[in-house]
Amino acid sequence: MARIVMKFGGTSMAGTERIRRVANIVRKQQARGHEVAVVVSAMAGETDRLVNFCREANPLYDPAEYDVVVASGEQVTSGLLALTLQSLGCQARSWLGWQMPVRTIEAHAKARIEDIEAEALIAAMAAGEIAVIPGFQGVSDAGRITTLGRGGSDTSAVAVAAAIRADRCDIYTDVDGVYTTDPRIVAKAHKLKAVTYEEMLELASVGAKVLQTRSVGLAMKEGVRVQVLSSFVGDDAIPADDIPGTLIVSEDEMNALVEKGDMERQHVTGIAHDKNEAKIILTRVPDRPGSVAHIFEPLAKASINVDMIIQNVGRDKGETDVTFTVPQSDLARAQALLEDRREDIGFNRLISDSKIAKISVVGVGMKSHAGVASTMFQSLADRGINIQAITTSEIKVSVLIDEDETELAVRVLHTAYGLDASDEVA
Amino acid sequence: MARIVMKFGGTSMAGTERIRRVANIVRKQQARGHEVAVVVSAMAGETDRLVNFCREANPLYDPAEYDVVVASGEQVTSGLLALTLQSLGCQARSWLGWQMPVRTIEAHAKARIEDIEAEALIAAMAAGEIAVIPGFQGVSDAGRITTLGRGGSDTSAVAVAAAIRADRCDIYTDVDGVYTTDPRIVAKAHKLKAVTYEEMLELASVGAKVLQTRSVGLAMKEGVRVQVLSSFVGDDAIPADDIPGTLIVSEDEMNALVEKGDMERQHVTGIAHDKNEAKIILTRVPDRPGSVAHIFEPLAKASINVDMIIQNVGRDKGETDVTFTVPQSDLARAQALLEDRREDIGFNRLISDSKIAKISVVGVGMKSHAGVASTMFQSLADRGINIQAITTSEIKVSVLIDEDETELAVRVLHTAYGLDASDEVA
Repeated sequence: MARIVMKFGGTSMAGTERIRRVANIVRKQQARGHEVAVVVSAMAGETDRLVNFCREANPLYDPAEYDVVVASGEQVTSGLLALTLQSLGCQARSWLGWQMPVRTIEAHAKARIEDIEAEALIAAMAAGEIAVIPGFQGVSDAGRITTLGRGGSDTSAVAVAAAIRADRCDIYTDVDGVYTTDPRIVAKAHKLKAVTYEEMLELASVGAKVLQTRSVGLAMKEGVRVQVLSSFVGDDAIPADDIPGTLIVSEDEMNALVEKGDMERQHVTGIAHDKNEAKIILTRVPDRPGSVAHIFEPLAKASINVDMIIQNVGRDKGETDVTFTVPQSDLARAQALLEDRREDIGFNRLISDSKIAKISVVGVGMKSHAGVASTMFQSLADRGINIQAITTSEIKVSVLIDEDETELAVRVLHTAYGLDASDEVA
Repeated sequence: MARIVMKFGGTSMAGTERIRRVANIVRKQQARGHEVAVVVSAMAGETDRLVNFCREANPLYDPAEYDVVVASGEQVTSGLLALTLQSLGCQARSWLGWQMPVRTIEAHAKARIEDIEAEALIAAMAAGEIAVIPGFQGVSDAGRITTLGRGGSDTSAVAVAAAIRADRCDIYTDVDGVYTTDPRIVAKAHKLKAVTYEEMLELASVGAKVLQTRSVGLAMKEGVRVQVLSSFVGDDAIPADDIPGTLIVSEDEMNALVEKGDMERQHVTGIAHDKNEAKIILTRVPDRPGSVAHIFEPLAKASINVDMIIQNVGRDKGETDVTFTVPQSDLARAQALLEDRREDIGFNRLISDSKIAKISVVGVGMKSHAGVASTMFQSLADRGINIQAITTSEIKVSVLIDEDETELAVRVLHTAYGLDASDEVA
């Protein structure tokens, strides 16, 4: 017997027919003898509808009242799932954010969970009742409804799993797991049996949007074992205990899986790509203390998220070129801010390029294995792909390339690191 | 300065444009220096949508989870009205049922308000904040959401008015007040300036569905002055302090209004009709103790609401005919129950007729004025309208007639009691 949190997104909850499918999956999981809590999103489209109401009512909306309105979407689906589970003969009840309670900080519309009181929930689950919990919502110390920001239901699920000390948090999505790379680009991409939290964070931050990044960070901090799996499976193909999706676990558990022979040790776990960044080059910036701070301080103040930063050696003494990336959606704003400060910064030209892609190879294996980066550079060079910038972390190497070469680069690297599925597997 | 509760129904809250109209009315009321609390219904159609979801999820739905789902409709409109009021420069916040809290009995989907903690609300209103309260919802001692049953928002408004000791509870509806009779039948019907609680209860119970009956009973018990008025007035024609709708007040206040010359004393306040009843006659029932109990006990057990009961003197000694009315929708069930007990009751024939109408004249004035009933009988007889049964209460005389004669009877009585509007008024 295990204690399991199951989380279903808005597509799975869109309408009473789909909720019935979800209820069947939940019921079968409980029938295996597990204690089950379910965290649900609002019906697909419902949160958008409610957000639009708020915008129409008041473009500068008070986030406290916005939370009252938008939290209703998950309230509805949690009640409906409890009703549907009851119609299948299960005991079930909904636990709203203020009822458990799920205590959050005061920051409405972008709250952070501080604490979940789970004793009553644990007791009800032990008595055979399925707990149905609306994701995304909590309650402030002032007793008002808070929400966690868009996509917060993954975080709710992980937080509930931590609070009830669940054996696993299963996140049902519209993909059936985490892949070595985007299967739409590489036909031979294969589903990973497991990745570490760190790998998942790196993969998520570079475009593999399977899970909300914040939920992975929380799972890592709380040591919650997460599984990503598909809710679009036939009724008979519901998750067996042998983990049909991808487990997201600690490095220790990953090592144990490898030692048991359940996993092969890879140097690189996956290849990610991200086309949503834009590159800015400032040329001939004075090479003196403080000049780089002049560049990034205004961007930080404007909440523009700078990702890669490369300071090239300048051709002329005392000067340097600075290259960095920002989200494409912030490019125009960043350019305007920098032009305003041209004199303070002292750059010569501002060159921007939004036709770039960031390609990353990610893997905890590279911590203990040299040569991962050079394999990347050599493989790309062999195919004539020019690298515009490079950054590295302990478990990731990222390069900027021309956007048009994205698919080619991903395919080349997928093969180079031995990730292509064998014919038997594919 | 007064403290006023304003209640708006689903038609007034249907969409952000209409909510903006409501917000303007509320803002102008506050601008007069009043402290204002607003009680709102869900958007028109929304409660039906949510109830249908519940039925689809589970035809035998758990009323506790049903309440979680359906209470969300008023949660949304209360948040949206608060946001809209803020956009007009008002201070406003929503107070959900569990936040004030509005404590109810445990009976989900048909709860009754036991107590409202209003101290925080009163303090916020005194500080200039408009309180926006979702109608229809409360919270049980177990900390779960309850709802008051369909149409419960009128009751919520009156209960809030009692709790905050409001000077008046204004109920905005799609009619502009209470009329002497149905204006669709009598063109010369006119709006009443005031009626007593008792009159309103009698008028409501015989078909004048302006207010939910339960809310009038609560207003009477708590001494809450209620005003019925229209929300479909131009922005400039919003309620002035001189009461544009119909006041519903105690008999004492009514007497004071008459003495001040604000109202004329009438013997009859209004004429109501109800076509939703059906008549059952049981002939030759043994005239012995207990025989009538045999008739009505099974109907009561089946929750069939018996209204008029008339025991006619039988033609034969030791036998009597019993006539009574039930809602048309319960007629078939009532007939089946009575046929099942034919031997116990000992009746000869069961005659039913659903083509009947109940016509009632209502007025506190008749307490102190003889002849109201005989005027009714004579006026109807003069026009050849046959009276099938009669019941009376302290402030009401009701007769059963043929349904086809409803409109004629109402017009005749409206004239007979001097209720036709004069040309100047009309």
